[in-house]
Amino acid sequence: MIAEIVSIGTELLMGQIADTNAQEIGRLLPELGIEHRHRQTVGDNVGRIADALRLALSRSDIVFTIGGLGPTEDDVTREAVSLAIESPLVEDEAILKKLREIAEIRKSPWTESQNRQALRPECARTVPNENGTAPGLICVRGDKTVICLPGPRTEFLPMLRGPVREALSRLAGPPIVSRTIRVTGIGESLVEEMVKDLLHLGNPTVAPYAHPGQVDLRITAFGDADTAAKLIEPVEAQIRAILGDAVFGTDEDTLESAVVDALRARGQTLAVAESCTGGLLGGRLTNVPGASDVFLGGVVSYANEIKERVLSVSPVTLKEFGAVSAECAREMAAGARGLIGSDWALSVTGIAGPGGGSAEKPVGTVFLGCAGPLGVSAEGLRFRGSRESIRVRSVQASLTQLWHALARGA
Amino acid sequence: MIAEIVSIGTELLMGQIADTNAQEIGRLLPELGIEHRHRQTVGDNVGRIADALRLALSRSDIVFTIGGLGPTEDDVTREAVSLAIESPLVEDEAILKKLREIAEIRKSPWTESQNRQALRPECARTVPNENGTAPGLICVRGDKTVICLPGPRTEFLPMLRGPVREALSRLAGPPIVSRTIRVTGIGESLVEEMVKDLLHLGNPTVAPYAHPGQVDLRITAFGDADTAAKLIEPVEAQIRAILGDAVFGTDEDTLESAVVDALRARGQTLAVAESCTGGLLGGRLTNVPGASDVFLGGVVSYANEIKERVLSVSPVTLKEFGAVSAECAREMAAGARGLIGSDWALSVTGIAGPGGGSAEKPVGTVFLGCAGPLGVSAEGLRFRGSRESIRVRSVQASLTQLWHALARGA
Repeated sequence: MIAEIVSIGTELLMGQIADTNAQEIGRLLPELGIEHRHRQTVGDNVGRIADALRLALSRSDIVFTIGGLGPTEDDVTREAVSLAIESPLVEDEAILKKLREIAEIRKSPWTESQNRQALRPECARTVPNENGTAPGLICVRGDKTVICLPGPRTEFLPMLRGPVREALSRLAGPPIVSRTIRVTGIGESLVEEMVKDLLHLGNPTVAPYAHPGQVDLRITAFGDADTAAKLIEPVEAQIRAILGDAVFGTDEDTLESAVVDALRARGQTLAVAESCTGGLLGGRLTNVPGASDVFLGGVVSYANEIKERVLSVSPVTLKEFGAVSAECAREMAAGARGLIGSDWALSVTGIAGPGGGSAEKPVGTVFLGCAGPLGVSAEGLRFRGSRESIRVRSVQASLTQLWHALARGA
Repeated sequence: MIAEIVSIGTELLMGQIADTNAQEIGRLLPELGIEHRHRQTVGDNVGRIADALRLALSRSDIVFTIGGLGPTEDDVTREAVSLAIESPLVEDEAILKKLREIAEIRKSPWTESQNRQALRPECARTVPNENGTAPGLICVRGDKTVICLPGPRTEFLPMLRGPVREALSRLAGPPIVSRTIRVTGIGESLVEEMVKDLLHLGNPTVAPYAHPGQVDLRITAFGDADTAAKLIEPVEAQIRAILGDAVFGTDEDTLESAVVDALRARGQTLAVAESCTGGLLGGRLTNVPGASDVFLGGVVSYANEIKERVLSVSPVTLKEFGAVSAECAREMAAGARGLIGSDWALSVTGIAGPGGGSAEKPVGTVFLGCAGPLGVSAEGLRFRGSRESIRVRSVQASLTQLWHALARGA
């Protein structure tokens, strides 16, 4: 099986956005044992899209289109697919009904252009869009399959990872099983060094993928489900033995879900006190459905006066050590724990830049506090990079601090 | 002039890296008035690269290759270009000399494979690489030009922005100027309906792009900078007249930066009270460097007890209307404004799902409060989609609520 991607959108050619959707498909295909040799990117032009599809269909079995399914005039993917696979567009009653329901819920007026989203090639079946209006399409013509996915990421990803992945596994060859071990608090090169004896096993393969503050090790085994599981198991055990509590989970686990699960298992609760992250730590913890079992809330103390008045940070601390200090981080965490009445509280205070740095405390200086049943601790870190990167890494480091405290049985 | 990009590298197809180099070229081309209709991405395979180049040369005047110029066996761009443009590879004495000098400076041993980097198609001239070994190549064959650039970003960018940009401006026609008008609070189809008379002007062109809760209208004009500005100006004025205060900014503006700027201009301050967004609203506001001029902080009141005790929401309100209600949103906003001592406060309370919905208040029900100098208001909304999508749209809607209040001079 050979697949090919046709990414659609003038904004992609113009470089306004990176084609991260194509990247997601690119990562998925090898997992399913599907080869992938070409990608084409074209603007919102029906003739050029149809030509790109004809070329793709001449050399690939499965062709993905990304984008161009919206209601506006430059959304012409449906028309182009219909031309390329020679299957006329028909109006789908079920889609139309769904679209009208959505418009009613949103209380948005029905415009003529929205009818276009109910069109599909006659041979296509639809993939429901839980997060937007236009459905995805799977068109089968002889031994060729065209899969049309919407461009907006919040609509694209759930479709790809759910129903499309399922349809692909049915089309694909022998299964490949993979398991991802998730690691925090150790850099990529050190992780790679520590597990280097496992990187050249053959079957299973082990490959590291780095994210800000996190490394994933993906173990992939070829064979049926049972054989593959037996190949993966001992390798996972070895990785866990080497990396210890730097491993916080596997597969769908996130650092925030691992922390929420660990707290839930102990019947304990959590609060936050955030300065430079402005709410991102609470925002990330509450990514987890059911976070309310353990997360009570917190305070964003962006101004020093709020640190003092709401979180009871002492004015002497602020004056002597400054708001960006281990002392302040400790008092913020203790203050949040007291105010919210939680078992644990995390605090973040730092300089995210681009302004505000000094020789003594340059941009990227961050202090993290952690207050728990056994006391309060703080650590200082220094990050490089953009404002966004410093804030994202601060959140990751704060969650890691709590993960370690919980994993070590504090 | 029409240009096309051929991006080379199996790591691009596998999704291991995003093709940010192609993005850079994509941004540069319109500035130089060069059209850009296609991009192809292929793995490290000499036959497939040559085929992609032949296709590109059949429909475009300028073809870029990115990547595959290194010394290793899978770096085969030189060979593929030589095949596609039918210009034999020759060893370039000057390149070889330079490569040997670099090896000496780096004190790295000379390996046979490095000789390959001194090869170039006979018709090519080289572009010096100040940050690596392999030079870039500009190959002219009749009226077609092939420009080969290295993949590593630190080598690619200086070449593109320096000598390649210069070579391109000599090839190109009149430049293109574009301006993006940013719109919030109105859906894509309605925006398009409202400005539909402007979508077919020719020069300038107007194109809509949708994001969650936001629509961008890009006006693009062809001509030198002065002419283009004069073409764009009246169209921008018309769009602003039609869309009114739904337009929050242009170009680099974000909704959060527009809100921060508007508050700063009035010398006013802001606080937040967040439930279902868990901190994301504060997190987004503090994306803006210098947000501390206006943003003081806030409370994440995830548990009802925190709404009551810290934000002074009345227990009667929680009992009679529930935490997800206009009444609670109003009291949360008023409570945050009082506690933090700000001029304005925004609140968000809702059901982000996947659990917690009911027939009366299904998942996606969100109430937004806004407390200001003139009083407190609240609005109820219903979003579809995933937990993530509901939370992101809630933040966008909350910022839009304040933007409208500020724009209307409240």
